[in-house]
Amino acid sequence: MAKIPYRYFLDESKLPTAYYNLRADMKEQHAPMINPATMQPAKEEDLYPVFPVGLCKQEFDNTTRYIEIPEPVRDYYRTYRPSPLIRAYNLEKVLGTPAKIYYKFEGNNTSGSHKLNSAAEMAYLAKSEGLRGVTTETGAGQWGTALAMACAHFGLDLTVYMVKVSAQQKPYRKAVIETFGAQIIPSPSDTTEVGRQILQKHPDTGGSLGCAISEAVEAAVTSPDRKYVLGSVLNSVLLHQSVIGLEAKTAMEQLDEYPDLVIGCAGGGSNLGGLIAGYMQDRLLGKKAPYFIAVEPASCPSLTRGRYAYDFGDTGRITPLLPMYTLGCEFLPSANHAGGLRYHGMSPVISKLYHDGYIDEARAVEQTKVFEAACAFSKAEGILPAPESSHAIRVAMDEALKCKETGEQKTILFGLTGTGFFDMKAYMDYHDGVMTDYIPTDAELQTGFDSLVQVPGYPLD
Amino acid sequence: MAKIPYRYFLDESKLPTAYYNLRADMKEQHAPMINPATMQPAKEEDLYPVFPVGLCKQEFDNTTRYIEIPEPVRDYYRTYRPSPLIRAYNLEKVLGTPAKIYYKFEGNNTSGSHKLNSAAEMAYLAKSEGLRGVTTETGAGQWGTALAMACAHFGLDLTVYMVKVSAQQKPYRKAVIETFGAQIIPSPSDTTEVGRQILQKHPDTGGSLGCAISEAVEAAVTSPDRKYVLGSVLNSVLLHQSVIGLEAKTAMEQLDEYPDLVIGCAGGGSNLGGLIAGYMQDRLLGKKAPYFIAVEPASCPSLTRGRYAYDFGDTGRITPLLPMYTLGCEFLPSANHAGGLRYHGMSPVISKLYHDGYIDEARAVEQTKVFEAACAFSKAEGILPAPESSHAIRVAMDEALKCKETGEQKTILFGLTGTGFFDMKAYMDYHDGVMTDYIPTDAELQTGFDSLVQVPGYPLD
Repeated sequence: MAKIPYRYFLDESKLPTAYYNLRADMKEQHAPMINPATMQPAKEEDLYPVFPVGLCKQEFDNTTRYIEIPEPVRDYYRTYRPSPLIRAYNLEKVLGTPAKIYYKFEGNNTSGSHKLNSAAEMAYLAKSEGLRGVTTETGAGQWGTALAMACAHFGLDLTVYMVKVSAQQKPYRKAVIETFGAQIIPSPSDTTEVGRQILQKHPDTGGSLGCAISEAVEAAVTSPDRKYVLGSVLNSVLLHQSVIGLEAKTAMEQLDEYPDLVIGCAGGGSNLGGLIAGYMQDRLLGKKAPYFIAVEPASCPSLTRGRYAYDFGDTGRITPLLPMYTLGCEFLPSANHAGGLRYHGMSPVISKLYHDGYIDEARAVEQTKVFEAACAFSKAEGILPAPESSHAIRVAMDEALKCKETGEQKTILFGLTGTGFFDMKAYMDYHDGVMTDYIPTDAELQTGFDSLVQVPGYPLD
Repeated sequence: MAKIPYRYFLDESKLPTAYYNLRADMKEQHAPMINPATMQPAKEEDLYPVFPVGLCKQEFDNTTRYIEIPEPVRDYYRTYRPSPLIRAYNLEKVLGTPAKIYYKFEGNNTSGSHKLNSAAEMAYLAKSEGLRGVTTETGAGQWGTALAMACAHFGLDLTVYMVKVSAQQKPYRKAVIETFGAQIIPSPSDTTEVGRQILQKHPDTGGSLGCAISEAVEAAVTSPDRKYVLGSVLNSVLLHQSVIGLEAKTAMEQLDEYPDLVIGCAGGGSNLGGLIAGYMQDRLLGKKAPYFIAVEPASCPSLTRGRYAYDFGDTGRITPLLPMYTLGCEFLPSANHAGGLRYHGMSPVISKLYHDGYIDEARAVEQTKVFEAACAFSKAEGILPAPESSHAIRVAMDEALKCKETGEQKTILFGLTGTGFFDMKAYMDYHDGVMTDYIPTDAELQTGFDSLVQVPGYPLD
């Protein structure tokens, strides 16, 4: 067999034609979304005022195993997919490890991340339902860029509520989004009721994804021909992101490889859910499967230190209640945290898989260790990773170094979700030695837990 | 035949194993480099104190048609090559043109441009000659990033003199270069004799590539174990960049396509020389060939308004005299010029090919038109182009629109040399309507021409 190449691209003819809906293979579904007004399970129709209808259908569909990717979306994917599966020969050499390290690199598109996979499907659904535009929030800016690109392609207006601290730290990311024709509003803003309330309570806040979501939803539901879309957490987003894992699994099969370890970073869970999709099916069907590790920031540790409980998806408490690992919807990561993955909760599907032991482990890492890994990876592999992705790099390197000690020849697959070109301020802080770590105390976390809502009849733990 | 894909990647087995040296096929070579101390042709050995010896040999070799790419360099190329050949279906649709538009996209690596192709070979040569490090200059920062990546890979120290205005406009580009372990010095600086002289004469200058070259050369020749390398203009750089054109031609052949037009942006000429390499061989051998267009900024119009004359490669007048189209080595583009391609001269090989009619046309475009094209291209193709590359986009779009008028189904190939993630300030200026155009007056250009040196016995025009 020929030596495995550095970068392996699937042939266009081998690209997925359908999303894989791993809920269809789960023996037990997560508890239902709850409508906070009635404290009863939310119905698909309850979401129609907020999201495009097609998205609501996907959100509630836990029986259709394969959901066809519309041809216009597949066509759009072909402009930047397949993403390469990369064998990290140079990193292996630098580490001196007997492990084989692969990564699926989703950063080689202008949005700089995997988010475009879901943005394309959402923009298509919104457009085909006759909407004029959509609203959304963005934190690091990757989702906003991705959606702006997709909206430019499918011909939709877009308003992006961007977490204020990100908008300040990343003016150029803002400019990219504007280049694709979208409007940016730093959040919290005075353009919404919920934004004005948050500003009154916390005038100096740098914002959070939770705040920005609340504003974007309000802007959508108060306008006749716009709806809201969201780049993470939702079951439907994980569905779209399954293209990552399906491509990765097919490519690994073509290379005659099966990973022992699959490692993904986890903020809201979209990348992780997509990356593991193909192999998680093996696990769900009782076959041989890899060991799955979710990696999160020590400063925003929803899986490792959060509660498995019902919580709002946003700070403004206007979303349904979601069954998930959460730090409480009012949790704001420390301002010194530059590593992304700032969301207070975790996708209900990922939460359920983790709770039931299908995801084997969650690991929290400190940001200085993450940037240390990012710099080593840059020099070895010649790719400047996003801080988010670097969480997975950190753990992949740690596991490869363990193999060096034990001599085990494990095959490691991790998700390199994106590039860090718009995160250079954080890199500069790291180089200048002024980056610090922050681990919330139990008492600080307790404040978040105290705000959790109990849903009678639906105990989670 | 299957529909041509959006992105076409050559198989690794089809990648070039040798650089194509188009000088070997030129009926007439350009006039010799002149040693300004003797006013006689420079010898290969004259360059040994400045450049790695291997590079000097390539610089003077105009007879070896194919020069093998060293295996470690080919191996490094495999980490980011082949670059995709992209069919611009979406741009064609937006323009409503019957033309078929292809572009060779060199921006999908962390340096964000084609410069890495040459950086890899130079770093390898320097390392194999036992040097501790190299020095260089960078303007927009792409070359500095590329060389920093290559030096990190091959284990060399690197000091980069970065044009001051670029360092100020692009602090994050600086941070990327530092992430790869290189040292950055904004130029002109007080670390060199020539820098101090320039600062005394023009204390407020934003610098220029010419100044930065002078400083980097001085830093190299005054140090025992470092040499200088340069990312453009040199014959050897064009040689390395031939991988672009060789890959493009092979890919086009596999798709059963032959371009009517080949369009490249031209600053120092490295991209253009590389892009046209494969097809220029057809022209030089008297076969059917495309029409070649070089595109340059109206604010720095060396081909369209410069003199074909001997000139220094740098402002400090320490390089040999090069036979080239030039605006005079003291020419500084207007400070409002954000579009890159700021170099006062043009590669001797490109100059000769243009002078002798092998390159059919040079066209100068104004930067607001360039950014207009860049934005339209972004929205259509989902790639945020570098301002430099956008010069070629502008002309490719203009030619495609001509086809719309005439109904001609031309096949257009242009070079998309890089991405614009670090040029967002210029994009912001364009969005905000504060970008202006600048076309130097004849009188302004005359000042540059007045500084040109005559070389007895070597008339050029």
